[in-house]
Amino acid sequence: MTRSPSNILAAIREQRPLVLNLTNSVVQPLTANLLLAVGAVPAMLNDTQEIKDMLAVCTDALLINVGTLTHEQAHAMRVAAKEAKQRNIPWVLDPVAVGLLSLRTQACHDLMLSTPSLIRGNASEIMALAGQSAQGRGPESSDGSDAAVRSAIQLAQSTGNAVLVTGEVDYATDGKELFAIENGHEMLTRVTGMGCAMGALCGAAAAVTLNKLAAAVATAAIMGVAAELAMKQAQGPGSFASAMLDALYTLDGEKLSAMARIRQLDMP
Amino acid sequence: MTRSPSNILAAIREQRPLVLNLTNSVVQPLTANLLLAVGAVPAMLNDTQEIKDMLAVCTDALLINVGTLTHEQAHAMRVAAKEAKQRNIPWVLDPVAVGLLSLRTQACHDLMLSTPSLIRGNASEIMALAGQSAQGRGPESSDGSDAAVRSAIQLAQSTGNAVLVTGEVDYATDGKELFAIENGHEMLTRVTGMGCAMGALCGAAAAVTLNKLAAAVATAAIMGVAAELAMKQAQGPGSFASAMLDALYTLDGEKLSAMARIRQLDMP
Amino acid sequence: MTRSPSNILAAIREQRPLVLNLTNSVVQPLTANLLLAVGAVPAMLNDTQEIKDMLAVCTDALLINVGTLTHEQAHAMRVAAKEAKQRNIPWVLDPVAVGLLSLRTQACHDLMLSTPSLIRGNASEIMALAGQSAQGRGPESSDGSDAAVRSAIQLAQSTGNAVLVTGEVDYATDGKELFAIENGHEMLTRVTGMGCAMGALCGAAAAVTLNKLAAAVATAAIMGVAAELAMKQAQGPGSFASAMLDALYTLDGEKLSAMARIRQLDMP
Repeated sequence: MTRSPSNILAAIREQRPLVLNLTNSVVQPLTANLLLAVGAVPAMLNDTQEIKDMLAVCTDALLINVGTLTHEQAHAMRVAAKEAKQRNIPWVLDPVAVGLLSLRTQACHDLMLSTPSLIRGNASEIMALAGQSAQGRGPESSDGSDAAVRSAIQLAQSTGNAVLVTGEVDYATDGKELFAIENGHEMLTRVTGMGCAMGALCGAAAAVTLNKLAAAVATAAIMGVAAELAMKQAQGPGSFASAMLDALYTLDGEKLSAMARIRQLDMP
Repeated sequence: MTRSPSNILAAIREQRPLVLNLTNSVVQPLTANLLLAVGAVPAMLNDTQEIKDMLAVCTDALLINVGTLTHEQAHAMRVAAKEAKQRNIPWVLDPVAVGLLSLRTQACHDLMLSTPSLIRGNASEIMALAGQSAQGRGPESSDGSDAAVRSAIQLAQSTGNAVLVTGEVDYATDGKELFAIENGHEMLTRVTGMGCAMGALCGAAAAVTLNKLAAAVATAAIMGVAAELAMKQAQGPGSFASAMLDALYTLDGEKLSAMARIRQLDMP
Repeated sequence: MTRSPSNILAAIREQRPLVLNLTNSVVQPLTANLLLAVGAVPAMLNDTQEIKDMLAVCTDALLINVGTLTHEQAHAMRVAAKEAKQRNIPWVLDPVAVGLLSLRTQACHDLMLSTPSLIRGNASEIMALAGQSAQGRGPESSDGSDAAVRSAIQLAQSTGNAVLVTGEVDYATDGKELFAIENGHEMLTRVTGMGCAMGALCGAAAAVTLNKLAAAVATAAIMGVAAELAMKQAQGPGSFASAMLDALYTLDGEKLSAMARIRQLDMP
């Protein structure tokens, strides 16, 4: 990794990348507010032609999150991913609940053909996506996060890009290196869309560095450290959500470096 | 009522029921955040097949709220209600603005055929729904809340389930017993979706008890007490919304029992 | 201007106008909460027939915001604008990103045929809308806000109504008079939907006065003063969003008059 999380945070604030979010209807406000808090510029669109227009004129990264998918949206997402790939715009896939529900499982399969620059999911999503886009997963590990890490590595190798597995500990890999990011707080799971907004932040990070692994690590560190800072202000999930945006807005690069708990792991 | 509000709150926190919300687009974030704050797990979907998948695998309760209805959504809701009934999954109907607008009035009529486990509405919605699903309402009471209570009892008797009428005082009935819950605060009406989120909370409560009347009473008491606690922190509707989620997250069972003002009324 | 911002604020609180918002999916919760905070009543609908029902029974103003437009929504908006015009209900056009994206550019062109009572946009949107609805803009000014003001005046003259250009300084004109409103804070740009919610507030203001210019000035002053008050409480965009709603709820008419920085400018 040539670029540190604080370096990437500074670049987002300076370059203000525009992230186009094709995301689920529940998390649109938080996604937009989180991007604004960190210094990026959010856009959300629904019409396929307008999405193509936007990718042609001023989009620095694209997020595709299948959380509340419809057939129309699946079509728009396929077109957008293809267009992003052709235009060399980094794009992030957040395969919410892939493997569990039918429409999105097919849609994620199709979207993988346009090779996402980054994939962000929880352990079970990453395992389901890997099981689907590859022939089997080899022998099952007894440990869920071990199995998820193996799936992430496999996906990263097959796309030639990076994968971020989020959970109590986050894991980032590009198929050659593996990092664990141990920041964060359980309260993140009590506010809807914090995980989905991490996908959007991956987009902002990928817009300012060619190093997708560094973008994934920076996203996990920025969110995790901000959550720890926010917990100092919070009495519960309501005040936490608000404090999280404040923390992302005021987060200092040196504090980020000092608080980030990033460890390189041996490849399994 | 065999189960008290504090008992139901404890059960929600322990069992973490998954509530599938087919709800209006304005209130999705608050609905999800309120369910998370209280310990339940929210899901939102738009595609009919995915809704059927979800009801087949891991849904403990279903909310149907017609607030921003479209023809496609009305179709998905009819399928979902039917499926929930067949699978014996409790489902809640929130008939927003029924009687006022055409599409939803027809949709609510259709949905009633799948016998909701719980109905949550304000006085005029409950009266409109009763007027529609039954032959007349008998002589009009001069008092709006009296008339609404009579409509609620009639709906409860016709469905064999429970109805919650929310307002300055909330009323819950199963057609045999009637309770008034006198908690709450006017500020609840200054935050969009607090009423709609009560429908979702009805779902979480109905997932942990077979006693639908107890679920309705618990929902009103939990929301009302949390609102009273939140008002101690709030300077206006912005800080109130945040404090409400904090209060639901930290609400203590003993405090809930001590503060709940629940009175059994004679049946009219 | 016969009606001051504090006069209009008092009228909104007393009359509680119902504003029907056909707006983008990202900003629906904030739009509704902002209207509630200021004392108005929000409604959001998606179905064309229900929109017509609502305009027929109890709508005091209509907002049309094209932020996440679809073909279906564009159709509903055209019908709604036409209906509002026929029924003499004031309606506000917020032409988000007009000129940049194809579907909305055509939609705004069509909507202009129903003569909006108020137009709210940033400098580039107002310039794009004027360029589109009129034959040329004459010689370009070297100054962006000068050019935007000229476009606003042109639009106001062609509609016979008022235009509000929002930015670091807000400008309001009815084509005969021109005002600058110098309140506000940069933090407004760090919370998604604050601009869009201003469009909704224009609707609430236009519902309580026939003077569209006064409605535009009042909207800018109320939002700007509330933002300045909110900044006294805020640590970042999360706490600012919450404090903004509190400030709108508690805003005192005398304080509004004292803090509002409104200057009448010479017409260019």
